[in-house]
Amino acid sequence: MTEDSRLTSLAASLPASVPFVGPEAQERARNAPFIARLGANESGFGPSPQAVAAMQAAATDAWKYGDPECHDLRHALAAHHGIDAAHIMVGEGIDGLLGLLARLTLTAGDSVVTSAGAYPTFNYHAAGFGAHIHTVPYAGDFEDPDRLIAKAKETGAKLIYFSNPDNPMGSWHGAVTVADMITHVPEGSLLVLDEAYSDLAPDTAIPPLDPENPNVIRMRTFSKGYGLAGIRVGYAIGPKPLINAFNKVRNHFGISRISQAGALAALQDQAWLDHVRQEVDAARTRLAGIAIRHKLTPLPSATNFVTIDCGHDGNHARALLQGLIERGIFVRMPFVAPQDRCIRVSAGPPEELDAFERALSDIL
Amino acid sequence: MTEDSRLTSLAASLPASVPFVGPEAQERARNAPFIARLGANESGFGPSPQAVAAMQAAATDAWKYGDPECHDLRHALAAHHGIDAAHIMVGEGIDGLLGLLARLTLTAGDSVVTSAGAYPTFNYHAAGFGAHIHTVPYAGDFEDPDRLIAKAKETGAKLIYFSNPDNPMGSWHGAVTVADMITHVPEGSLLVLDEAYSDLAPDTAIPPLDPENPNVIRMRTFSKGYGLAGIRVGYAIGPKPLINAFNKVRNHFGISRISQAGALAALQDQAWLDHVRQEVDAARTRLAGIAIRHKLTPLPSATNFVTIDCGHDGNHARALLQGLIERGIFVRMPFVAPQDRCIRVSAGPPEELDAFERALSDIL
Repeated sequence: MTEDSRLTSLAASLPASVPFVGPEAQERARNAPFIARLGANESGFGPSPQAVAAMQAAATDAWKYGDPECHDLRHALAAHHGIDAAHIMVGEGIDGLLGLLARLTLTAGDSVVTSAGAYPTFNYHAAGFGAHIHTVPYAGDFEDPDRLIAKAKETGAKLIYFSNPDNPMGSWHGAVTVADMITHVPEGSLLVLDEAYSDLAPDTAIPPLDPENPNVIRMRTFSKGYGLAGIRVGYAIGPKPLINAFNKVRNHFGISRISQAGALAALQDQAWLDHVRQEVDAARTRLAGIAIRHKLTPLPSATNFVTIDCGHDGNHARALLQGLIERGIFVRMPFVAPQDRCIRVSAGPPEELDAFERALSDIL
Repeated sequence: MTEDSRLTSLAASLPASVPFVGPEAQERARNAPFIARLGANESGFGPSPQAVAAMQAAATDAWKYGDPECHDLRHALAAHHGIDAAHIMVGEGIDGLLGLLARLTLTAGDSVVTSAGAYPTFNYHAAGFGAHIHTVPYAGDFEDPDRLIAKAKETGAKLIYFSNPDNPMGSWHGAVTVADMITHVPEGSLLVLDEAYSDLAPDTAIPPLDPENPNVIRMRTFSKGYGLAGIRVGYAIGPKPLINAFNKVRNHFGISRISQAGALAALQDQAWLDHVRQEVDAARTRLAGIAIRHKLTPLPSATNFVTIDCGHDGNHARALLQGLIERGIFVRMPFVAPQDRCIRVSAGPPEELDAFERALSDIL
């Protein structure tokens, strides 16, 4: 398609893309619904019934704009975390916050650092503002804090992206390692600590919040443990000047009123989150067992998914993935070698894991 | 507050701001809820009950990400308008789409043209990408298409913002005038035709869709006539290369699953929209009568609000507005002289208009 001549040269240079093809698009392509939805690390255990009730009640009020300050949610988060609300910015998922952060900090020719094969939406936004993306390899199945820091020093990176626990590998570093990494962020650089999966991780993986620390911005979400991927609410925790800067560029009325109500109710139902943690733990154990019974190797996980080493190369894993898709099982896999020897399966309810196991047995 | 040193020079130069202070923030400041919510041109007549039911049903599915392609909604809109879905981009309200369009087309030093006192969120986004904002005055209570086009020629503007019907004045131009304006958009420029209020306007105000026309992008929303401001769904209609360019920069998973379901159901309930049109018409008549009984001048409106000329200057109108706010009536007013001689009151249910009338009588 010819480009519109009014685009900026940067915009003209970007590809039209989507970081992930949605399962609905795959369902339309295969002309049949999936029987198990285990590919996007959504929570098949669902959101808190209290969150559902709050959203249903808010639906009748949908004629009103949502509060552009997200006051009630932000203050509830502040109380939950024991920090000042001025350290918190609510956004349209971590994806939306990553986009705003890239806009605030990156200009053409700036550098960012990430791991080869880490979350592609960070790269999408960094490239979208003209940044150079420098990567370091995983160390085995782990992101490599030392090399990320070293590469940031070498390139003068504005942003360092690091997820803990990691997606797509499910691995994690302990809080001490992460805290040490935060200490070593070079001057002029900012660590983007993506903690989307922190609600499913052991406490020992998550360093205490220290929101005045200028070296790091931490990203959290209601999409994973809280089971509310569909409502698009994430939040950033960081130093006040950086958090306040989002007010320069954000879509102030962008957070749905229903979403604000749902996230608030979900936060107030920590018992549901505990229940989900137990379900996820059981599902991870079950997925590991399925893998082992099929002579595959489950990797340890601190997330709501299990990455399964299929024992050969990317082509082998891609063929296996394709077989699963053809059998109605929505799963995904890492994009980059050597991680692409694996497939990635979300924790889900028993009947979906049954369907996964049947399909896997049928293929192998 | 000290700026974060890692911001781009552009970001550092921007003020932290909100184009509109939300009514919830005003309620918190006055420590009491409003008794009438007539300031944001929300639809107090509410959304379609079918849309409410669809959103309530979708709430239980909120653990799933929304379809990043908004396939079903986009295709339903295409059928509704009789155009190809490739001409339609769904976004987080017109506000979100204006931000993306600014990002796609504007770089530091570019020019845009708008009317002095028109929708501030366009200016917010244009300034947010470093553009120079050139304004032309209203012609009486109307935006001035000829001067907007002339100013765009003079400044080489990339974008020309024009709303029809107009906010905050409620005035409108006929379809022939708008079509003529589209024809005269200079080479290299794009007319941003904000038709947020088109669902409430007479058919004679809205030129037929001509989505291949490269001169114009048209913005529509579910926030006004459809009564779904809280769910953040707007859409743009334009030439395919321009529409596709949004895929380079948008937050692909940014549209809530519940919002997609609500907008789709609302679109399918055109009888409700007809009902709202009748309610809005009655409310406009009622508001005009209230104004006249208080020796004020209601301006003609093709929107879901009535702008009321208070007969003196901005200070007079601001005092009147303040009196209404103090009496629990949420209304707004134009920001810029000479339009700021007016207050702007949304169409709302009879009991809210009663409250407005009582407060107005009390003040005057």
